[in-house]
Amino acid sequence: MPTYSIGVDLGGTNLRIAAVDEQAQVLERVTLGTQAALGRDRVLDDMCAAVRRTADKYQNKASLAGIGIGVPGIIDLRTGMLRESPNLPGWADYPVRVEIEKRLGTRVILENDANAAALGEKWLGAGRDFDDMAMITLGTGVGGGLILGGRIWHGMTGMAGEFGHITVEPDGHPCGCGGRGCAEQYASATAVLRMAREAIASGRASGLLRAASSDPEFSAKAVYNLAIQGDQEAKEIFRRVGRAIGIVLATLVNGLNLPIYVIGGGVSSAWEAFSPAIFEELRQRSMVYAATAPPVPAADARRASAQVQPLGSSKTIIARAMLGTDAGLYGAARLALQGG
Amino acid sequence: MPTYSIGVDLGGTNLRIAAVDEQAQVLERVTLGTQAALGRDRVLDDMCAAVRRTADKYQNKASLAGIGIGVPGIIDLRTGMLRESPNLPGWADYPVRVEIEKRLGTRVILENDANAAALGEKWLGAGRDFDDMAMITLGTGVGGGLILGGRIWHGMTGMAGEFGHITVEPDGHPCGCGGRGCAEQYASATAVLRMAREAIASGRASGLLRAASSDPEFSAKAVYNLAIQGDQEAKEIFRRVGRAIGIVLATLVNGLNLPIYVIGGGVSSAWEAFSPAIFEELRQRSMVYAATAPPVPAADARRASAQVQPLGSSKTIIARAMLGTDAGLYGAARLALQGG
Repeated sequence: MPTYSIGVDLGGTNLRIAAVDEQAQVLERVTLGTQAALGRDRVLDDMCAAVRRTADKYQNKASLAGIGIGVPGIIDLRTGMLRESPNLPGWADYPVRVEIEKRLGTRVILENDANAAALGEKWLGAGRDFDDMAMITLGTGVGGGLILGGRIWHGMTGMAGEFGHITVEPDGHPCGCGGRGCAEQYASATAVLRMAREAIASGRASGLLRAASSDPEFSAKAVYNLAIQGDQEAKEIFRRVGRAIGIVLATLVNGLNLPIYVIGGGVSSAWEAFSPAIFEELRQRSMVYAATAPPVPAADARRASAQVQPLGSSKTIIARAMLGTDAGLYGAARLALQGG
Repeated sequence: MPTYSIGVDLGGTNLRIAAVDEQAQVLERVTLGTQAALGRDRVLDDMCAAVRRTADKYQNKASLAGIGIGVPGIIDLRTGMLRESPNLPGWADYPVRVEIEKRLGTRVILENDANAAALGEKWLGAGRDFDDMAMITLGTGVGGGLILGGRIWHGMTGMAGEFGHITVEPDGHPCGCGGRGCAEQYASATAVLRMAREAIASGRASGLLRAASSDPEFSAKAVYNLAIQGDQEAKEIFRRVGRAIGIVLATLVNGLNLPIYVIGGGVSSAWEAFSPAIFEELRQRSMVYAATAPPVPAADARRASAQVQPLGSSKTIIARAMLGTDAGLYGAARLALQGG
């Protein structure tokens, strides 16, 4: 009987479930709204019911290895509890893993969503030909995940991979983490919007001002659209995004010398606008990168995924993520298949 | 018959050799001047003769596992050649490993000296109770070494651990690597001296000016002595040293979440002057550190090595190196014992 697992991506808005077998065949997918506002117990009820329906369906066809759950927030791996999770109020310090294991009678692995996304990209996405990989996820915040030897590198307390809080401007914008000038303050969607507002407030950004005035849902996406149309202030904002990511990448390349670094998350769709600055910073700030950079036009966004080369070529690859929002879902499933 | 290995620390000035057994008993030590000026072949002759004398002596008492050699510079692990080594002119692109293996008829492992030092501290020094460790070596430059799972983490091409080239001031002082504001430009002996000269040139550093004028061998050590005596400008220089190291450490803690980070090299003897700024930066810039910092007065230099705690306590330890200039020698011996 083949083995499969169930991956769960438990976001603040959506709850997604996929049953995936060892050959990475997706047997089934379910998307539910996360009734986060209705409270933790309601979300748990919904999740367990959906997982149970899926498991029942495959009961006689395949053997369930376990359930992997990606959640936003800091997880205590030892206890299987969330230490902090702004998007899931009421979940902190509740024995999530034990509770779900009890309800479903199967092994449950809880994982930070950025780590799960990195594992997903390693399994089926941009990192599939590599054993060692770092991923930076550019979303509302900036997350990260580190894969060493094919597995998530957790560090001592499961808190490794916080690449969004690497300092890129020592006296820069204050960060929610208590630091200053963290990458998250320059490379997240939130940061793009803040930098746009700062540019508007400075009086020098007429294009951004017009867009913000006419669009009640003015967003990072709108800033990107302006940048692509050639608006100088919008372009400058994405240059700062790329510079911040470039400094983080140079640090990772100098420190870890990995074969591949993957950039994902919603903001990564602005690749065309920010990637030239990434490669500029990387070449300047990392001898290791300069010595191992692939001979591919750095700014050619369409070729970014074609940059992925087989192991042994000794080239440092900077690649866009390939799985979009599915990365965390597949990574969660993979976790259960490989046992953590 | 017990097993032993021979470690070689091949510096630009000294060539040191130690025979060490698996229980870390030092069987023999030899120090020779490196006749670097007389050329590569002379140094190789001297080294091989000294190694052979030692090996002959233990021939019937212990089994030689191999020879580990720590060298300054970038090493191509695959070919066993130096790619670049400013302190050993004429050694680049010469088949060092193959040549020594041929001469001595035993296995030779070549390693970057900062990596060897990290492995030495892991084996017998500050990191001995830990499997995962990063070391920062503050010397003429700033080197680094990363130990994961008890072994040197080389990365794809053996260039990992270049912590001295992590950006700490994005628009800061130009670095020999081609970057700007690398940690090396603020935390090396060279940087201390440069910052002292800058302070003197600014006209605001009368204490430093006096010391520099009266001492023909004015050095980083002299700046440290002034700082300890309370000279404000000298203190400020070491505050900048600590800030740079603190930013690098915050990056490593946020990214890797290791249990221990070891600070070594000649400049680390100025610990009292720069360590308060390290802990200040770390607490501010790393949630991970703040969540795992040991309850020890951060600035208490005398307790720094007592901060080392056993595995499982889930505390992030920042410790001074314990082996001084022997770290690389022991690390080189260890390399041969553990087979790379």
